Amino acid sequence: MEIARIGIVTISDRASRGQYEDKGGPAIYAWFTRVLTSPWQAVAKVIPDEQQQIEAVLRELSDEAGCSLIVTTGGTGPALRDVTPEATEAVCSKMMPGFGELMRNASLKYVPTAILSRQTAGVRGKSLIVNLPGKPSAIDDCLNAVFPAIPYCIDLIAGSYLEANPEQCKIFRPAHAMRK
Amino acid sequence: MEIARIGIVTISDRASRGQYEDKGGPAIYAWFTRVLTSPWQAVAKVIPDEQQQIEAVLRELSDEAGCSLIVTTGGTGPALRDVTPEATEAVCSKMMPGFGELMRNASLKYVPTAILSRQTAGVRGKSLIVNLPGKPSAIDDCLNAVFPAIPYCIDLIAGSYLEANPEQCKIFRPAHAMRK
Amino acid sequence: MEIARIGIVTISDRASRGQYEDKGGPAIYAWFTRVLTSPWQAVAKVIPDEQQQIEAVLRELSDEAGCSLIVTTGGTGPALRDVTPEATEAVCSKMMPGFGELMRNASLKYVPTAILSRQTAGVRGKSLIVNLPGKPSAIDDCLNAVFPAIPYCIDLIAGSYLEANPEQCKIFRPAHAMRK
Repeated sequence: MEIARIGIVTISDRASRGQYEDKGGPAIYAWFTRVLTSPWQAVAKVIPDEQQQIEAVLRELSDEAGCSLIVTTGGTGPALRDVTPEATEAVCSKMMPGFGELMRNASLKYVPTAILSRQTAGVRGKSLIVNLPGKPSAIDDCLNAVFPAIPYCIDLIAGSYLEANPEQCKIFRPAHAMRK
Repeated sequence: MEIARIGIVTISDRASRGQYEDKGGPAIYAWFTRVLTSPWQAVAKVIPDEQQQIEAVLRELSDEAGCSLIVTTGGTGPALRDVTPEATEAVCSKMMPGFGELMRNASLKYVPTAILSRQTAGVRGKSLIVNLPGKPSAIDDCLNAVFPAIPYCIDLIAGSYLEANPEQCKIFRPAHAMRK
Repeated sequence: MEIARIGIVTISDRASRGQYEDKGGPAIYAWFTRVLTSPWQAVAKVIPDEQQQIEAVLRELSDEAGCSLIVTTGGTGPALRDVTPEATEAVCSKMMPGFGELMRNASLKYVPTAILSRQTAGVRGKSLIVNLPGKPSAIDDCLNAVFPAIPYCIDLIAGSYLEANPEQCKIFRPAHAMRK
């Protein structure tokens, strides 16, 4: 079975300068470690909130590193430096509005400011790119909400086959798409 | 009373080559036959997942055939050949994001992969264009969810007056918009 | 404490010609008067459904009048003259999709035609621009739904500090963002 590559991109001016410990990236890594049962490896990056640089890293993780899934953390709010959704849209050929809708909905159960997140998702080649929030607890809420649909989405774009521990996260795949 | 025209566009490479029976188009036709009580006629097309061709058919059904409502089935997923939403957006002057949001929400009750549908809706001239899923059961769920708002939407864009059997689908129209 | 400026823009052909009493603008003014406890002043405008004119007024209220919040009422439906969302998007550097999603969801509790509203929100400089419906009762439903997130959103874009009476509307601000 091939080893799936998952890009984990922390987008934060302060974390990229080392002024702040990156908590989002490790939270994502911990979530996948707990949930995934198929072989995978992480390709992690920590970069500042610069649109050109974010676009370059997303392109590299998709086109060169061959990541089937790329998740970002940070930069989705309304502030001047928050440009992660714009960078994501710039590199994707297809946008997937249902991801942002469901993640905001899931976060709204905890905090009314969930609507301030502009997080989105899209497809570039054989990679699904998903924006997650910056805060570790919100990252878990969002991954719990959308990950059930992610393995089948990656099947449909000819990426790697992902499997999850059903006690941690119940993924859904139509019967015809399952490998024995 | 004028006869409303409804375009039903099946978008599928395999169905358009005859390799696959078109099930989406007939499911839509059956739904309208069951629900509508005002006179209507269908203009049905089966075409491949080619963006230019989809755009041309949508333009023709709106500008020449005078369809007040055009529904598509198929081509809304994340796969390379899925380009129905892009074609829809290309021919519309106004997008209606509430349709996609509500259809994904309705489908989420049945399957977590509902967020993979990129279906949208928009207005071109006097036509409302709505993307539906490819699967017949999901078509019904989506029409049940959004159709209550469709007749009044078509009133607002100066299309034909549609009426429905309230036991099949409760449409909503403000009192001032009702014809006796 | 500085006096926050709030732009209230009624967008209606008939109201701008005096053929129709503007009810949306006063409903918004009444809502803020009831809810806000920090000092504020309104800058009100009534203009026709002309995209260029709407854009010019939004730019003026943001760039010259220094409004931290600009709310519009009217022009968000599917009809030919409804162009408020397009004007809003044209003047904003960032779109905030969560506002439209939540407002449509809130209105759906009352009327299935809520999905016909194309209302959106976005950021221009230090101003948050939010489209509200035209109908006074729907205005209240929408402000009740999204206002809890608005003061913190305005903090994040370096606008004025807004405070609300918690018995009227429970705003949310993380502890680190609160002024004593």
